[in-house]
Amino acid sequence: MRNVGVDDLVARMEDGDGVALARAISWIEDEDERGHALLDAVYPRVGSAYRIGISGPPGAGKSTLVDGLTEHYLDAGKTVGIIAVDPTSPFTGGALLGDRVRMQRHGVREGVFIRSMATRGGLGGLSRAAPSVAAAMDAFGLDFVILETVGVGQSELDIAEAADTTVIVLVPESGDSIQAMKAGLMEIGEIFVVNKADREGAEMTVGEIESMLSLRDEGDGWSPPVVLTTATTGDGVGELASAIDSHREFLVSNGHLEERRREHLKSLVRTIIVDALEKKLIERLGGEAGLDSMVGDVGEGQRSPYQIARQVLDSISEGG
Amino acid sequence: MRNVGVDDLVARMEDGDGVALARAISWIEDEDERGHALLDAVYPRVGSAYRIGISGPPGAGKSTLVDGLTEHYLDAGKTVGIIAVDPTSPFTGGALLGDRVRMQRHGVREGVFIRSMATRGGLGGLSRAAPSVAAAMDAFGLDFVILETVGVGQSELDIAEAADTTVIVLVPESGDSIQAMKAGLMEIGEIFVVNKADREGAEMTVGEIESMLSLRDEGDGWSPPVVLTTATTGDGVGELASAIDSHREFLVSNGHLEERRREHLKSLVRTIIVDALEKKLIERLGGEAGLDSMVGDVGEGQRSPYQIARQVLDSISEGG
Repeated sequence: MRNVGVDDLVARMEDGDGVALARAISWIEDEDERGHALLDAVYPRVGSAYRIGISGPPGAGKSTLVDGLTEHYLDAGKTVGIIAVDPTSPFTGGALLGDRVRMQRHGVREGVFIRSMATRGGLGGLSRAAPSVAAAMDAFGLDFVILETVGVGQSELDIAEAADTTVIVLVPESGDSIQAMKAGLMEIGEIFVVNKADREGAEMTVGEIESMLSLRDEGDGWSPPVVLTTATTGDGVGELASAIDSHREFLVSNGHLEERRREHLKSLVRTIIVDALEKKLIERLGGEAGLDSMVGDVGEGQRSPYQIARQVLDSISEGG
Repeated sequence: MRNVGVDDLVARMEDGDGVALARAISWIEDEDERGHALLDAVYPRVGSAYRIGISGPPGAGKSTLVDGLTEHYLDAGKTVGIIAVDPTSPFTGGALLGDRVRMQRHGVREGVFIRSMATRGGLGGLSRAAPSVAAAMDAFGLDFVILETVGVGQSELDIAEAADTTVIVLVPESGDSIQAMKAGLMEIGEIFVVNKADREGAEMTVGEIESMLSLRDEGDGWSPPVVLTTATTGDGVGELASAIDSHREFLVSNGHLEERRREHLKSLVRTIIVDALEKKLIERLGGEAGLDSMVGDVGEGQRSPYQIARQVLDSISEGG
């Protein structure tokens, strides 16, 4: 297994070998060059999976809802990939544990592939690798790829940059929808779910969300529905799947799906380019230590960060 | 006022003119070249203000606590600048409204300067400008600069990159400390506050936080205290101020304050440089439209984002 090559892995992925997919994803996560080469090779097959982002505050029951939705798709004969984006914490050991717990629920069924990913550095942001991992699952031939965050700020928002349909999950709790609004979630949601619908105040929360949505700029002409679910019993999961279907049809029929995916590709390309430029810059300065000493030298004179940045940039263009 | 020059504003800031400071901050926020020139001019006076970051989930009572802490410092004859980082929302009109509401509480007292800032694009992240605004307040001669977020993911974490002491505010609510841990807050807090200490479960929350902290790597040798407050009555605010003082003395005595500020300066310089490189790149590609068409052309062949990025980078180095 150690010296497994890109071509070999691509061939095995074509044969539906889940172990090969898992290995490919590890390469991508590790920013191994072979991961990029593999993506280059399989990219012509990317595009048939539908990507669903599931986002919302912690404790809203997102994982249970994702599990329910997955069961629903499996029952319909579809295959599903799940990417659970999880901040790493030195306390929890996060990602791995989550994988194992969840595997017990689904693991025996065919047609589902689960991967937990840590956010970069544990501090916010959807893992850079997530869209590429989704692409690998897509090329593997899965029908749906579900991207789920644990609901921590930036990653909630990044998910809209990687998904075809973004679902925001809230619960009937005082102020939950206000907090979602503050966090910018009301602006990115295309479907809203009020989970734990058996709790008091569920209808009121639906009303709150609807009144906030009525203030929202219509944008592309889609009116986000609000779906009531009780993920623990499966109530409402079918309605959620129907809402996702409707949004998909809406996007396909007016050409927005293509457009949206092109926009996502563009921002991904941009991120890759900027990362590459930054890496090159640091190399040219002699690594992190070079940047350190430069900032140290110039910083002695109490100069502003803008002055220091200009000096660094000047020294690069002079130095060739 | 329209053609006011940099030198004039610098002189007026030296005279303690708050209107001049407000104008300077607007330049900085707008990324006006004059804002950078002004920072260059005043930077030799930066460094005497102590920067306190206040972070935590929405609804924890951070604003009230910041107000209480401000009163405490004012009573001690100190001056205070407050930077409230607020996500903009088309619904709320956010920042401005907040300023006005808060001005009514403090506005009549001398020695306090309040500024609300929107996060860039409304979506996460401490405004890029916040550290520079803090520097302007510092140069103006304020004794304390308090950076407060509304508690939305990334901005909570960014605040630790701009503050000398980071305070995390939680409330006695089931799961609040667990959520804080998930969000990475337990790792960045140097002082923890359990606000709304009159509520049931406050002592239990303190216990939870302390047990999580006991698992934390000791790092620099500082053991984060947990302070109980009731911001609405002012209870515990004095203890919080003492805890901040102790942390400040700790940092000063072992040289960590200098080191920390140098690290913050370095990451700020890096951000400015990377932004400048990205801007230059987009210009070279013929603006956003150029990048669009490039991604469009190359993307036709279903190439991977890495292939497209390489092609764009190649075309730049060839094109000179």
